[in-house]
Amino acid sequence: MKTQICIIGGGPSGLLLGQLCQQAGIDAIVLERRTRDHVLSRIRAGVLEQGFIDLLDEAKVKTRMDTEGYPHDGTVISFEDMEVRVDFRKHTGSSVMVYGQTEVTRDLYAARDETEGKTLFEVDEVEIGNAALNGDEPATVSFLHQGERKTITCDYIAGCDGFHGPSRQAIPAAKRREFERVYPFGWLGILSETKPAHHELIYANSERGFALCSMRREDLSRYYVQAPLTDRPEDWSDDAFWAELKRRIPSRIAEAMETGPSIEKSIAPLRGFVCEPMQYGRLFLAGDSAHIVPPTGAKGLNTAASDIHYLFEALKARYQERDMDALGNYSERALARVWKTQRFSWWMTKLLHRFPDTDPYELRIQRAEIEHLASIESAQKTMAVNYVGLPY
Amino acid sequence: MKTQICIIGGGPSGLLLGQLCQQAGIDAIVLERRTRDHVLSRIRAGVLEQGFIDLLDEAKVKTRMDTEGYPHDGTVISFEDMEVRVDFRKHTGSSVMVYGQTEVTRDLYAARDETEGKTLFEVDEVEIGNAALNGDEPATVSFLHQGERKTITCDYIAGCDGFHGPSRQAIPAAKRREFERVYPFGWLGILSETKPAHHELIYANSERGFALCSMRREDLSRYYVQAPLTDRPEDWSDDAFWAELKRRIPSRIAEAMETGPSIEKSIAPLRGFVCEPMQYGRLFLAGDSAHIVPPTGAKGLNTAASDIHYLFEALKARYQERDMDALGNYSERALARVWKTQRFSWWMTKLLHRFPDTDPYELRIQRAEIEHLASIESAQKTMAVNYVGLPY
Repeated sequence: MKTQICIIGGGPSGLLLGQLCQQAGIDAIVLERRTRDHVLSRIRAGVLEQGFIDLLDEAKVKTRMDTEGYPHDGTVISFEDMEVRVDFRKHTGSSVMVYGQTEVTRDLYAARDETEGKTLFEVDEVEIGNAALNGDEPATVSFLHQGERKTITCDYIAGCDGFHGPSRQAIPAAKRREFERVYPFGWLGILSETKPAHHELIYANSERGFALCSMRREDLSRYYVQAPLTDRPEDWSDDAFWAELKRRIPSRIAEAMETGPSIEKSIAPLRGFVCEPMQYGRLFLAGDSAHIVPPTGAKGLNTAASDIHYLFEALKARYQERDMDALGNYSERALARVWKTQRFSWWMTKLLHRFPDTDPYELRIQRAEIEHLASIESAQKTMAVNYVGLPY
Repeated sequence: MKTQICIIGGGPSGLLLGQLCQQAGIDAIVLERRTRDHVLSRIRAGVLEQGFIDLLDEAKVKTRMDTEGYPHDGTVISFEDMEVRVDFRKHTGSSVMVYGQTEVTRDLYAARDETEGKTLFEVDEVEIGNAALNGDEPATVSFLHQGERKTITCDYIAGCDGFHGPSRQAIPAAKRREFERVYPFGWLGILSETKPAHHELIYANSERGFALCSMRREDLSRYYVQAPLTDRPEDWSDDAFWAELKRRIPSRIAEAMETGPSIEKSIAPLRGFVCEPMQYGRLFLAGDSAHIVPPTGAKGLNTAASDIHYLFEALKARYQERDMDALGNYSERALARVWKTQRFSWWMTKLLHRFPDTDPYELRIQRAEIEHLASIESAQKTMAVNYVGLPY
């Protein structure tokens, strides 16, 4: 098989790149390790930046989101007895869109079907021709599919295969540098078919730790509480979860909130991770294959989208304007924004969680930071600018 | 002896309160442990917030500063090869004043002489009558002076006697809570009769650690480099200091800077400290007796001044409007601002120093924070608002 861009990974990043290429007349094949149903069963992020929405528009997959998504013009941050609302629209003229990653992925697959974009599912044992990454030869990707080993010859490879995928590993260890921050706690999350506690997200730092009231739809809520990494979801009954959540959020919200059975319950660790550089020869990493953020600032999926923006811009320059050097700056451009989103996610995570080693001085600093946010307009604006998404 | 306010400590906080009281017709006596010459030999801070300047104006000691001080409209922050200038005037309409603490103190003593404000020097073994702090009885301060034990009877005691003074200790340990952050390095500083390297301050974070180019006058420079706490000033020759400084600051500055012999050289540890509450019965703490900041944000003297503002406002309400409850809120009002200045000093210290445990991830976050500051106007504004001084 032969294509211009071989995209490894059929999650939202890979599919988005595939659809953008499709619109621009660049030939691409998407390889996905799992089945389509499996990909669509994963419950992930749900807060989209304006830049991401613009990309979805460019890929012509924004129609359902326009009807079914929920624009959020602000968010609430609470610290013990204090509450601050940060107004995104006032400070940036923009807002974020609550629309589940699963829905984005579903829309992208639907668009892919319509445009006859090629996707291979249940692709295993992917191997990237290492030699091919450096020379003038085309790159190759070989893999097992329907019992056969197949090879794709291509100009470029987009590694959209997540943290555990083979793409990053195809960069020799001596040619990359990895940066990591592991947080000493996780998020225990549930999904429940209940009315969301509030029409905007509530980020809460309480004496008992962090909690987040989030949502997917008007009848589908997503809640999280900070929990030790040693806890297992099965240790937490629904009642125990609701009770713990209510202790951590503002009482006016807790008293009025609807509860019900969870339809999903899981614990996720929190970490920051960045691989530098994000390109090697004909291979370009995008999204989780190159970086992970703690979910506190809702930057994971959005930063994957900004990678796709930079990569697609470079590919367009390459194919539409014959600018053979455009791809050379991809890593540098993408990383500058990646580190800013790491910084923001790190800041929000530090601000809102109780760490095992948070001492009384640090706790007062957390409170002072919230009081500073409450009283200084430019601090609210800075948070808003970062939350709705830094410019590409 | 009898007075309305017994002020313990004849540094700038105590003297400022004394002069403000004098102007308002409130009787006060200042007790100082050292001689006047000793107080005036101490080399300390030199960057004053607008709020402090306004207080000096109210105390009628601003004349010389108006002529001899240097208004600074911004500052430069460098990180390795990057430079960001933060424009105070653009973002806040205000600026800071470079004018040494020694000069402020000198002006306050001169004003005190003119107004015949009472100051006792070489006062030792100060004892605050503990019982007096709670009851209806007046407070008493007894002390050794010129070989005799004397006692002052007063309405209130202002503890302006610094971190090591007796005032804070007069609050029973069970009635106060102390918060502390010790930083694992110090500042090695010199004073030299040379032209300042730049017309504004330069805060530098380099591979070799922090450096600060500051100034007192056009012919008097103040420079600092981050150094291990185990270093002693005598370990550092002037040549070694200049060489180290030049390695840490932007090369365009280093190449053009004037060097010369140091006329003072010392190492100061960095720490954050807060005592809560800042009042107990008839005793009110102000300045270093209640809180210490690392010098990075130039907030030590300025926060002492904001304490004096709150305390003086409450004393005026008490004596001029017979509002007997005004003093009751002093600690709460002062601490709200104290913690914000702790936060700012902590943020600047974290941003600009290399810590022994700074790992590669953290280093990238530092760089991203500087890039964020360079590119986000509201982040510059937030820094400017804090640097020129939060509103009282």
